[in-house]
Amino acid sequence: MTYKAPLRDIQFVMNEVLDYPAHYQTFAEGQNATPDLVEAILGEAAKFAEQVLSPLNVVGDREGCRNNDGQITTPPGFKEAYQQNIESGWPSLAFPEVYGGQALPSSLGQVVSEMPAAANHAFSMYTGLTLGAIATITAHASDDLKQRFIPTMVTGQWSGTMCLTEAHAGSDLGLLRTKAEPNADGTYSITGSKIFISSGDHDLTDNIIHIVLARLPDAPKGVTGISLFVVPKFKVDADGNVGEFNNVRCGAIEEKMGIHGNATCVMNFDGAEAYLIGKPNKGMACMFTFINESRLGVAVSAQAHIYASFQKALNYARERLQMRAPQRKFSEKAADPIVVHPDVRRMLLTQKAFAEGGRLLNYRCAQLLDITHGAGSEEEKQLANTLLAVFTPIAKGFLSEVSLEATSYGIQILGGHGFIKESGLEQEYRDTRITAIYEGTTGIQGLDLLGRKILGSGGKILEPFVEEIRSFCTNNVKSAYVTETEASLNQLLDLTDIIGAAAAENPDEVNAAGVDYLMFAGYVTLAYCWARIAKSAKTAIDSGGADSGFYHAKLHTARFYFERILPRTQTLATTIQSGASNLMAIDEQYFGDC
Amino acid sequence: MTYKAPLRDIQFVMNEVLDYPAHYQTFAEGQNATPDLVEAILGEAAKFAEQVLSPLNVVGDREGCRNNDGQITTPPGFKEAYQQNIESGWPSLAFPEVYGGQALPSSLGQVVSEMPAAANHAFSMYTGLTLGAIATITAHASDDLKQRFIPTMVTGQWSGTMCLTEAHAGSDLGLLRTKAEPNADGTYSITGSKIFISSGDHDLTDNIIHIVLARLPDAPKGVTGISLFVVPKFKVDADGNVGEFNNVRCGAIEEKMGIHGNATCVMNFDGAEAYLIGKPNKGMACMFTFINESRLGVAVSAQAHIYASFQKALNYARERLQMRAPQRKFSEKAADPIVVHPDVRRMLLTQKAFAEGGRLLNYRCAQLLDITHGAGSEEEKQLANTLLAVFTPIAKGFLSEVSLEATSYGIQILGGHGFIKESGLEQEYRDTRITAIYEGTTGIQGLDLLGRKILGSGGKILEPFVEEIRSFCTNNVKSAYVTETEASLNQLLDLTDIIGAAAAENPDEVNAAGVDYLMFAGYVTLAYCWARIAKSAKTAIDSGGADSGFYHAKLHTARFYFERILPRTQTLATTIQSGASNLMAIDEQYFGDC
Repeated sequence: MTYKAPLRDIQFVMNEVLDYPAHYQTFAEGQNATPDLVEAILGEAAKFAEQVLSPLNVVGDREGCRNNDGQITTPPGFKEAYQQNIESGWPSLAFPEVYGGQALPSSLGQVVSEMPAAANHAFSMYTGLTLGAIATITAHASDDLKQRFIPTMVTGQWSGTMCLTEAHAGSDLGLLRTKAEPNADGTYSITGSKIFISSGDHDLTDNIIHIVLARLPDAPKGVTGISLFVVPKFKVDADGNVGEFNNVRCGAIEEKMGIHGNATCVMNFDGAEAYLIGKPNKGMACMFTFINESRLGVAVSAQAHIYASFQKALNYARERLQMRAPQRKFSEKAADPIVVHPDVRRMLLTQKAFAEGGRLLNYRCAQLLDITHGAGSEEEKQLANTLLAVFTPIAKGFLSEVSLEATSYGIQILGGHGFIKESGLEQEYRDTRITAIYEGTTGIQGLDLLGRKILGSGGKILEPFVEEIRSFCTNNVKSAYVTETEASLNQLLDLTDIIGAAAAENPDEVNAAGVDYLMFAGYVTLAYCWARIAKSAKTAIDSGGADSGFYHAKLHTARFYFERILPRTQTLATTIQSGASNLMAIDEQYFGDC
Repeated sequence: MTYKAPLRDIQFVMNEVLDYPAHYQTFAEGQNATPDLVEAILGEAAKFAEQVLSPLNVVGDREGCRNNDGQITTPPGFKEAYQQNIESGWPSLAFPEVYGGQALPSSLGQVVSEMPAAANHAFSMYTGLTLGAIATITAHASDDLKQRFIPTMVTGQWSGTMCLTEAHAGSDLGLLRTKAEPNADGTYSITGSKIFISSGDHDLTDNIIHIVLARLPDAPKGVTGISLFVVPKFKVDADGNVGEFNNVRCGAIEEKMGIHGNATCVMNFDGAEAYLIGKPNKGMACMFTFINESRLGVAVSAQAHIYASFQKALNYARERLQMRAPQRKFSEKAADPIVVHPDVRRMLLTQKAFAEGGRLLNYRCAQLLDITHGAGSEEEKQLANTLLAVFTPIAKGFLSEVSLEATSYGIQILGGHGFIKESGLEQEYRDTRITAIYEGTTGIQGLDLLGRKILGSGGKILEPFVEEIRSFCTNNVKSAYVTETEASLNQLLDLTDIIGAAAAENPDEVNAAGVDYLMFAGYVTLAYCWARIAKSAKTAIDSGGADSGFYHAKLHTARFYFERILPRTQTLATTIQSGASNLMAIDEQYFGDC
């Protein structure tokens, strides 16, 4: 089944819930994004995703990438689609004019990115990582390097990667060993091997610009001895011309469970010429520019998979005739379409609640991204950064976890047919599995949110997040959903205090509570999202305009969320408070008899 | 990594928790199963699973089955392994001597079956379905048919299948269309097409005996017009000699998400000679012999996947060095093995709690199976049947659902390495996904347990189940786990009443609550299992024998279960009571904008 972009809902969230048009009035790139232009762009993006990328999704899964003696080829059709992507100007959408960009808001780029991610996750990674590489170079490199690399990356003619992981250094980058030796001319020579490099090598572009973590000679051990480098596959002269091969080789393509259309590479650097960006030994801090943007991108992919799975499952549930519902609504047919059965609805509504609530969460993050990228005052920028520090691990961690559940329901709704490749549902389940792993596992997101940020700041970092939700609640006191949202927020704060006190006694308490706390925060955040959606839907219904079915469906889904999903916080509150000792008491040696 | 059979824990559950030796004293087959013989059999089964089946698991996944012009071949090595399986006498283990069996208890067959299922699920299905086919013929066919088919199936020389599903008839078998026309000689001619037939065709045996649902001419519509037939791939004469081809063809092999080593076939019957078993139009009732045994088999596979995933993940967690735990236990190493990190332990303990608790649940079902197969009095048999009616959907539905979660943790513990095929963890996740679908989806298990059985009997069918748990609790009042088990059981009964009252007003309430109720019942059942395990472990510790590390690990895992898993019932109690209207209110038409 071909993907169909949910333009109606995208515009509802942008225009009616978050009031992007008003937000866009407040900054230059926003003013470029007139309502007509936004609508035209969304329509074109939908067409590209539906007509070009979606048909290649299965091809990518079946054919995968090939390694012919070190020449990496992408699946049939990817190259043509990538060319079309460049020609349509999609890569340059949200970059400044000085680099040849279209100077539209970052948020519009994020909104648009849901569609390629839903249509073809593996393809969308080739373009998505380039954006993060550009952002990293923009933020940390010299003007010379910016001029040399960015304009050609902005057009999409060159792509980018992030090279962090090594075989023995994953979550723990402090262990990495790749070396950077200084050369006489101010460049460095990089030697080492990286693994799990998405889009690491391929045939889509003339050059690939790697952002690489490595160690300078005599650098301190651990994360404080890591520096960041730009390493092109082919050397680039000062005028931006592509020169000789830079000894960056794909050693192997990994065989994975999903996203087969993306080349996940072992990358070997053999004295490759490299350019330091940021300060020596301060590479991890610079890399977080890339990591944070990528985490928001992963949240988009996770939500996109939920939606894509929901769309396919809903279509099936409307067509498939099995058994009679008690009301026997379709007695002219041999059986009722399964969409009338309560348990099928439970699964579909779970998908819908996560897909549409997750969309609002991601668009809210995108709005904040505009501000961190320069819309608004310095004070507003700081506030937005603080909000994103909290929203990012929630969006990434929570949406990827519920994406596993939601895409599993996509299979389950189809029964045996969902287990068969032809339905496409099992590919959603396989492809989204990586979202809970890459750019930091859910465990890492939990540590980042609860440990590094919230407890690390004595709770201070939470304040703008709490203030945002509380001020929405204060302004909408009459809704039952608002009352419940605020109650769950208060419970989150209580739990934060409880864990904080326990962690002061025993540092293991942080990691013991981390994932459950992250999920609790996610359910609270999604409650806030659904309370906002319900408010906007009610406003539209009260105004008596068209499309009331759409808005009533929003109210029903909000009710479903508050009655059947938010209660998950009850269990989480208990498990969070159960403490670390039920995890730590068991002896490593006797964990299992294996 | 090669599978290693958990013989220590298998024997703990058999001997120390369930006291199989005493149970075996009470019936003839049991008396054949002397402790020495059982130990020898388990040891041989472990070797076969570890040395023969486990190495073929990856081969089966990668190579899959092939269709060469209608000749179906299994993956390389499967044929030789199957021959070895026959030569070792595994298929005949738990069948009566009259059919050439070894006259050992059914329960021993179930216990043994965990090992091949954990080592190679796809392979184990070729032998597993044969057992159900034999049971069905034994229970419902004429003596002539029994003699003709069973002895050769018991040796494993012929295999069996169950042919239920058609393209338009899955959960709703009442819609099936395959026709059975009576012939003058008392046989029937079957014409129709079945889909999703596991082990439907292959090169492992000389003949394949299909158990087929079809309609006689002028049969009533729906499930009351379905009859059951035996249909061999090659005709078999009265002396059991294989004759001419019976027009049963594999039309295609399905491409699936997992269990690639098993041939899932479209099976076309083109006037195939068939033998009626059971009464005309009473086929569904007879088929439940097969379905119920198969559901217990699925519960074994689901639990086996949990264990296999746990074993691989635990080995990795003991070797993989990443980051420092707060206690810094391994300061001589570059980092700590990740098994010391609280969140990794949380995932491992979840796997362990489900794998070992699920093992007890399955072995308890196996014990009951002995009684339904003839051990004990008629009264005991009825009681065992009633208990199994409740335990079966719980074991099948609950264990398959938590298997999805547990195998997902298997991936997550390995991070990016878990997403790579080489680790084997992603295969566990893909292969076990079918367990929540085939032999009735989780939704169907929920309807079966709550609707058909519990509410259908006015709650009566629950009584022996409640009595079993309550009498254990009454005899062990001093344990906190017992108190909590009983409290959760009482809550289950309260919820049953609440749903029953609601369903009397609105029949949609049954299906609306079904899956959550099934899961609630599952958590209660597993609480009972862990309370029993804790009791046995404590007894062993108090007696001061060897192996105290093993028993202490049991106590720690029980604590983990009660503190971190059982609280899931809190959320379920809320969602169950939230009622059907939050599912039914939304209009089909506006479910989504697609």
